[in-house]
Amino acid sequence: MIRTIRGLRQYLAKVNGSVGFVPTMGYLHEGHLSLMRRAVKDNDCCVVSIFVNPIQFGPSEDLSKYPRDIARDTRLARSAGVKVLFFPGENEMYPEGDPLTGIEVEGVSQGLCGASRPGHFLGVAVVVAKLLNIVQPRVMYLGQKDAQQVAVLRMMVSDLNFPVKIFVCPTVREPDGLALSSRNKYLSADERRQAPALYRALKLAREKMAAGESDAAKIISLIKKLILDETNASINYVSCVSLKDLKDVRRINEDVLVALSVGFKSARLIDNIIFKV
Amino acid sequence: MIRTIRGLRQYLAKVNGSVGFVPTMGYLHEGHLSLMRRAVKDNDCCVVSIFVNPIQFGPSEDLSKYPRDIARDTRLARSAGVKVLFFPGENEMYPEGDPLTGIEVEGVSQGLCGASRPGHFLGVAVVVAKLLNIVQPRVMYLGQKDAQQVAVLRMMVSDLNFPVKIFVCPTVREPDGLALSSRNKYLSADERRQAPALYRALKLAREKMAAGESDAAKIISLIKKLILDETNASINYVSCVSLKDLKDVRRINEDVLVALSVGFKSARLIDNIIFKV
Repeated sequence: MIRTIRGLRQYLAKVNGSVGFVPTMGYLHEGHLSLMRRAVKDNDCCVVSIFVNPIQFGPSEDLSKYPRDIARDTRLARSAGVKVLFFPGENEMYPEGDPLTGIEVEGVSQGLCGASRPGHFLGVAVVVAKLLNIVQPRVMYLGQKDAQQVAVLRMMVSDLNFPVKIFVCPTVREPDGLALSSRNKYLSADERRQAPALYRALKLAREKMAAGESDAAKIISLIKKLILDETNASINYVSCVSLKDLKDVRRINEDVLVALSVGFKSARLIDNIIFKV
Repeated sequence: MIRTIRGLRQYLAKVNGSVGFVPTMGYLHEGHLSLMRRAVKDNDCCVVSIFVNPIQFGPSEDLSKYPRDIARDTRLARSAGVKVLFFPGENEMYPEGDPLTGIEVEGVSQGLCGASRPGHFLGVAVVVAKLLNIVQPRVMYLGQKDAQQVAVLRMMVSDLNFPVKIFVCPTVREPDGLALSSRNKYLSADERRQAPALYRALKLAREKMAAGESDAAKIISLIKKLILDETNASINYVSCVSLKDLKDVRRINEDVLVALSVGFKSARLIDNIIFKV
């Protein structure tokens, strides 16, 4: 485990070969581990960062109670074959407090989760730019569950010519379909029982689209109805957007991302599927 | 001369040793050449970029008439010992048109030239981030004449942990004191005769500060008076700011940057001095 930027740079200066990088906020689950196993397999060295990035949380969000367990994370990462854990403190990443430099990715940051989380993707972009400059990996591994994050970081990497490839791994799910998330821990037993309805709704949408339904509004209604019928959650959004620029589509005649966010009393959950025409 | 990002990356992959980088907009003068000679001296390989970056020009600014002479630039760079000129077209740097990704450096981008050139330093930050990711130099060489640009890029590099050092070279001047600038070419004969008044005013300010004058408002008045008395230029700003954060100071009891911008009929000129207490 390395806790300083200087220490990590010194270590990496001695590494021969390709570096794979998995950025995380810790409280690792099988989704993170699938990224790590892939990064270990594809590279000579795999670096995993664990940093709960304060600048991507809004003032009313769950920064202080975000789950942390570094001992367990260390064990899990090691079991996935990871040799280098970068675990910096806030003072190491933001020695002057909030950075003056912001990275705004127009277009893809504003919709979906960005609409109700202003500044969230700016915080994500800044911390990932920092980590890319510190680690200088050949490949960065991201999970499809955070689809908008993937889109924002893809655009940033492309627009700013970061010398890194992005590899996206599929969402890992519980046997009942719930997408793995560190925030699932917040759910009450009753909410946990209801939560698989999110993926059931997305699967139903996929079936309808595969059967020829191309009206995005109808697909969205279907998803909302199933979730409202089968859970106590409120719906933040259900959207059907173009996979390439995250803009809303009316007719499904191109590859789309169907993404949703719902609010249970104790946690906000997201999930999505990609449908290719 | 290399015109593609891919071509430059392929070339640099074979370079052993340290890379020094001088970003320019071309129409090279002795100021640029002083940066190049330093970069050649300090590194195994010196890369100079020539790119008139469209996104740092406002709609009413001089993008289309900005002076260009690549044949002369090539000759001059070669005479300074430069082996690699990176000369990309707009399509190479911005294949999708204006990038969606913006880099805003709060605090240091807003005052001085930023006040009348909204978006200018965002455009500078984006293109330099791109170039740093493409060239991956050990050191980037900048000129003190563009003091605010230096401050913005220093902050960006520090906040985002770009693995590069910034080396600032002193402003190079004509024998009569006029700071070298590609835009001096715009000046009429009469304006050219008047223009050295800018540096005379800054030198007078330095003398007064060295003699103990610590009232920033008095220093600023002195400079404005000299320029208005001795030229037909209008004053965009004359500012006395803290060297560390570019915030206005009232009393000169820390290291300051005294910076000015004036508008002649045919060109906007800037100049500055640093005064250390």
